[in-house]
Amino acid sequence: MKINNRQNLLVATLVGVLACAATIARAADPLPSWNDGQARQSIVAFVTKVTQPGSPDFVPPAERIATFDNDGTLWAEQPMYFQFFFALDRVKVLAPQHPEWKTKEPFASLLKGDMKSALAGGDRSLLEIVMATHAGMSTEEFDKIVKDWIATAKHPVTKRPYTEMVYQPMLEVLAYLRANGFKTFIVSGGGIEFMRPWVERVYGIPPEQVVGSSIKTKFEMRNGKPVLVRLPELNFIDDKEGKPVGIGQHIGRRPIAAFGNSDGDLQMLQYTAAGSGPRFCLYVHHTDAAREWAYDRKSHIGKLDKGLDEAAAKGWTVVDMKNDWKNIYPPERK
Amino acid sequence: MKINNRQNLLVATLVGVLACAATIARAADPLPSWNDGQARQSIVAFVTKVTQPGSPDFVPPAERIATFDNDGTLWAEQPMYFQFFFALDRVKVLAPQHPEWKTKEPFASLLKGDMKSALAGGDRSLLEIVMATHAGMSTEEFDKIVKDWIATAKHPVTKRPYTEMVYQPMLEVLAYLRANGFKTFIVSGGGIEFMRPWVERVYGIPPEQVVGSSIKTKFEMRNGKPVLVRLPELNFIDDKEGKPVGIGQHIGRRPIAAFGNSDGDLQMLQYTAAGSGPRFCLYVHHTDAAREWAYDRKSHIGKLDKGLDEAAAKGWTVVDMKNDWKNIYPPERK
Repeated sequence: MKINNRQNLLVATLVGVLACAATIARAADPLPSWNDGQARQSIVAFVTKVTQPGSPDFVPPAERIATFDNDGTLWAEQPMYFQFFFALDRVKVLAPQHPEWKTKEPFASLLKGDMKSALAGGDRSLLEIVMATHAGMSTEEFDKIVKDWIATAKHPVTKRPYTEMVYQPMLEVLAYLRANGFKTFIVSGGGIEFMRPWVERVYGIPPEQVVGSSIKTKFEMRNGKPVLVRLPELNFIDDKEGKPVGIGQHIGRRPIAAFGNSDGDLQMLQYTAAGSGPRFCLYVHHTDAAREWAYDRKSHIGKLDKGLDEAAAKGWTVVDMKNDWKNIYPPERK
Repeated sequence: MKINNRQNLLVATLVGVLACAATIARAADPLPSWNDGQARQSIVAFVTKVTQPGSPDFVPPAERIATFDNDGTLWAEQPMYFQFFFALDRVKVLAPQHPEWKTKEPFASLLKGDMKSALAGGDRSLLEIVMATHAGMSTEEFDKIVKDWIATAKHPVTKRPYTEMVYQPMLEVLAYLRANGFKTFIVSGGGIEFMRPWVERVYGIPPEQVVGSSIKTKFEMRNGKPVLVRLPELNFIDDKEGKPVGIGQHIGRRPIAAFGNSDGDLQMLQYTAAGSGPRFCLYVHHTDAAREWAYDRKSHIGKLDKGLDEAAAKGWTVVDMKNDWKNIYPPERK
């Protein structure tokens, strides 16, 4: 077949039109990293019905509150909560100023790299490590410490920055909800001031929409400047029964959608589900040992046992990471 | 002069154009209840410089956080905090269920209308009254109690609903800031759950942007439904040094503008003023005994003493209610 110039032009135009149509189709898919399946369909169906004016399930934008756990729901949490790696790195940085740590537990074992002995004291050891590394400075100094760490630290297994170990499919859910008038909140057992310095950049969630565990702070003049000083004293544990309490304190409204991955999120999902009108609860189930980690009922971190039973009984959405997600993490940055 | 049809049309058109121009001029004035003076000019100058792209004082929208005290700053607070009138009305409603109150202070004096004896016990009496009237129910039940009360209760002096005793000029400031990309927060010594049920309708501030004093809550199943139950136990006092602490907890960012009316707001204003870049601090000074109340250094409520000195020393804006405000309250509703 011989193609003349006019035909060439026509072909070029057609190719252009088709390419453009494909782009539009792609742009119109808000969840490109999700395989078509029950999980994906349930998300789209929920968002569609609560945003359709005139629908009996319509929810006014002001009430479209969605809460997300962080560890294991928005980013990975294995082999340990990432905030714990932060604390360990801080112990190493601060060790020269604390010669007593050489013989004082849990620091002595930590500095020798003996994690098991360091944590033998359970919650008390953990609390000591957190207080030694998270308190004493102003909130603004701590903000800078976290920002500096998260910009450079690498995950021990993947060797990627922690902020690249966020779940691409969940980033898409966050953006999809916000594009549909939802306000997205983090409600995490992690430290509120450990998350705030980076979640706006990474998740598009501003500091004032972060609920988390916290230590007390005190208003104080330092060098003539009023600051908030972080005290070595627990303020609030935002886990299990604490999550609905944290939601009450910070948001003051029952969410209509909640996302978690462990039994620590169960009360948040129960609280969300029990409101009147349409509700959406989702568990991320870690089933992908090849691309991420596979764990649930017996895991020492992010244990999902009772939650899995309740999700089945109540018909909540359970994401099968291996089969529902095309990608786990965003593409590596150069 | 005789006017023909054509001239009539011309006149009509001109009148129309002029009327329209006047409307535009009015619409363009974001602060119509403010007399032209230093206070008004300082607000406009600040908003203009932080929102002008390319200006050395430009502040990105995400950082445009403005915090407002409530009692005496957004609504009136005399002759007593309005939340106290709410508590008194609740004592009356609940009295039949508490026969012991007939002889138990501070309730016995309260029910006789003897405020002075009732409050002789100081903070302890006040706390007992608050706990007896604000705890025991779920957060959703309390929300309804507040909504019902605020819809019907009238101020003892003006006989107007409390939500009509908000300051029209401050409503204009709130709207003006939001129209310029600010996020507006309440940071009040009043109860967070006492404000949330009505501030969205009255101030345009959603529940999640309210910081206040609080009692503890507990996640609990009631009739098979998970709720937050309000406990008779203090959680947080959002006053004086507590205001910057509350800001840290809920907002996690230093505000760039803060509005108050008493020494209870001083630390919030100091904390705001001490950030880097452009800052704006404003005190509402109650100088209008005819249209509202006149009080400052010696008042038992909303005392403004140290704050007045610091405002003068630091060049903060001080609103002279009598001379700066054309109107105090919005027009009465029919």
